[in-house]
Amino acid sequence: MTMDLTAIVENIGQQARKASRVLAQASTVQKNDALVTIADQLEQELEMILEANRVDLDAGTEKGLGAVILDRLRLDEKRVRAIAKSVHEVATLPDPVGEILREWSPVNGLQISKVRVPIGVIGIIYESRPNVTSDAASLCLKAGNAVILRGGSESVHSNIAIAEALGRGCKRTGLPAESVQLLSNTDRAAVTAMARLDRYIHLIIPRGGRSLIETVSAEARMPVIKHYDGICHIYVGRAANLQMAQEIVVNAKCQRPGVCNAVETLLVDEAVAPTFLPRCAEALWSQGVKLLGDALTREILGEKVAMATEEDWQTEYLDLVLSIRVVPGLHEAVEHIETYGSHHSDAIVTDEAKTAQKFLSQVDSAAVFWNASTRFNDGGEFGFGAEIGISTDRLHARGPMGLEELTTYKYLVRGEGQVRV
Amino acid sequence: MTMDLTAIVENIGQQARKASRVLAQASTVQKNDALVTIADQLEQELEMILEANRVDLDAGTEKGLGAVILDRLRLDEKRVRAIAKSVHEVATLPDPVGEILREWSPVNGLQISKVRVPIGVIGIIYESRPNVTSDAASLCLKAGNAVILRGGSESVHSNIAIAEALGRGCKRTGLPAESVQLLSNTDRAAVTAMARLDRYIHLIIPRGGRSLIETVSAEARMPVIKHYDGICHIYVGRAANLQMAQEIVVNAKCQRPGVCNAVETLLVDEAVAPTFLPRCAEALWSQGVKLLGDALTREILGEKVAMATEEDWQTEYLDLVLSIRVVPGLHEAVEHIETYGSHHSDAIVTDEAKTAQKFLSQVDSAAVFWNASTRFNDGGEFGFGAEIGISTDRLHARGPMGLEELTTYKYLVRGEGQVRV
Repeated sequence: MTMDLTAIVENIGQQARKASRVLAQASTVQKNDALVTIADQLEQELEMILEANRVDLDAGTEKGLGAVILDRLRLDEKRVRAIAKSVHEVATLPDPVGEILREWSPVNGLQISKVRVPIGVIGIIYESRPNVTSDAASLCLKAGNAVILRGGSESVHSNIAIAEALGRGCKRTGLPAESVQLLSNTDRAAVTAMARLDRYIHLIIPRGGRSLIETVSAEARMPVIKHYDGICHIYVGRAANLQMAQEIVVNAKCQRPGVCNAVETLLVDEAVAPTFLPRCAEALWSQGVKLLGDALTREILGEKVAMATEEDWQTEYLDLVLSIRVVPGLHEAVEHIETYGSHHSDAIVTDEAKTAQKFLSQVDSAAVFWNASTRFNDGGEFGFGAEIGISTDRLHARGPMGLEELTTYKYLVRGEGQVRV
Repeated sequence: MTMDLTAIVENIGQQARKASRVLAQASTVQKNDALVTIADQLEQELEMILEANRVDLDAGTEKGLGAVILDRLRLDEKRVRAIAKSVHEVATLPDPVGEILREWSPVNGLQISKVRVPIGVIGIIYESRPNVTSDAASLCLKAGNAVILRGGSESVHSNIAIAEALGRGCKRTGLPAESVQLLSNTDRAAVTAMARLDRYIHLIIPRGGRSLIETVSAEARMPVIKHYDGICHIYVGRAANLQMAQEIVVNAKCQRPGVCNAVETLLVDEAVAPTFLPRCAEALWSQGVKLLGDALTREILGEKVAMATEEDWQTEYLDLVLSIRVVPGLHEAVEHIETYGSHHSDAIVTDEAKTAQKFLSQVDSAAVFWNASTRFNDGGEFGFGAEIGISTDRLHARGPMGLEELTTYKYLVRGEGQVRV
């Protein structure tokens, strides 16, 4: 690592820490003003942002990036206005900071309050999509945190343009411009430099593929909240309402197959498999879903279903593909999920409350559903207003990460001269 | 790393994960029964434990360990009975698992419950004192977690004897013996092997000196909750009750100087310094405290006070030494704390509510005190019943870590066939 990069990142960190102390004391009105002004600034700088985006698109085309990636990269007037609107919406969400989580007085007579406070400085390391720049920054800001963004090389010009608009928006309302900073160096070494800066950065959230998350986790000295794959299951129990089960399975697989809370494996109780599987398979096939199955599934559905391998049970397809296994009962369903799942989102469909309770209790996932689609594991659907992602970690934030999960707490202790004896 | 060690640690991890799934479903009565039985088992095995301890003491004496370390290592009947009593007390604490943290129904009509659940498998890496073995294990157990212990080489025989008693206690009540496991390999490589086992270990808590914590943090792939130094401050404001201030300072420095929540730096408002410092210094000197100070302090207290260096402000003395600085007011006190402090425990003494509020809000520490000794940042004093330590991290657990901080949460979502549109 060159001295220059280390010094640059150190300086960004120092400025961010300074800004975070101002943000932690900012009122809700001040933060909301800043967000509204940022939205306005993004609209004002629309032309500059689109111009920067064209530079990224041209470079991407020249590099031979695929159509999907180029589409993700592309901004147009509508998309920039949507980005601005999202920032506006964050201003309307309740401010989590200052909430008193608990107040009590132990035997020593002290008055203790556990209050919600910002985390401090949050680093976001992300890949291609430029809208992450403002989405992540506005959530961090609302929760009173300074943010250091480090996007991918494909969108670097777009990210710089957006981040500068964000910084100018902050400054216009009297908050530090350094509340939002972008590290524009897209070398791998810049990630390493951020990962070592535990002196100033209190949390890093990597948003992207497995390899990015693994690199950041391995190098980071500060806490990292990971958003890994969702290998999600639906177990159709012997007492399931089969029409409901079919609707839930089709929804969880087909409504948006490319996301982490889509279902990847269907587990069917052997008691209902002969009735359920043929009709459910028809519904899935009619939506273009490719089915893989174990031997029992293939006995029922025939050769059209390819044999599922050990690898299939561990695969997040993110596509119209579903693996199916027939299981003797609840116990085997839970064991399958614990063996192959990623503790993300798993569901049971059953009319038996007792079976459902066991499933909810025994399946160790961020969100466990009874008679509902796994697709509901989502900050918006949970009523959080917005989310920075769905954490697959267990500590601090599990499942949808909204504004509250971007805060921590401290203890305020009021005494009358108490000393320890 | 040899294949053997990796395989051993992997196997311990796998067994712990299996045990943790049983523990997560165990009732409060079952867990309390196990703790009571463990306490009983420790008393039953007292002779074996003392014998193992003698092996450690002999080896320590031969190695030339200092008297303080040997005393920390030493067990006698009274100490083993105290260890058993502590385990017994954990049985009387309320069970945090199963608590419903929040219940709500968003617009989609789902019934969402956020419930407290165990973390899973917790690794504790610690140094000399053998009582950590049972203290940490009993807290983890009560919160429904399996635990993997890895103690220091000086106490390895004592730790093995205690851990085996714990495992036998679990087994006697029908809980898996693998709920508590000790990794008896005391090579550095064993720590590395544990740090890489994020597949099975969900959290590592290093208990020991800075170098141990740094090694674990740098190598761990899973979350680590750190318990670093406390560089704690007391600011005596211009409107302080000077008698109260003196009592708090003397208590925070002298009552137990070797712990993390003892005060290391006294900041005195210039308005009261000429009155306060001479009498406070007398009280501290009479307790054998060595004072260091800035130029203004030395103007008031004279040459008897050595000059405090830049390094002093950053030092956790853990001894009867106190550095003193005279500051123009609140702002400079807060800036000093933010520059040199460790965000652990800081206090203000003042009769002005407005000044106190500013201090409580602006000082970014785990616990901020108004008119009370910093020594109260402690799980027992907070009414948590017991603590595994005082976290200097911001995420998941900040300040005293009791049973609640050894848990996480999951979402249970009940629907009536809802799908996403």
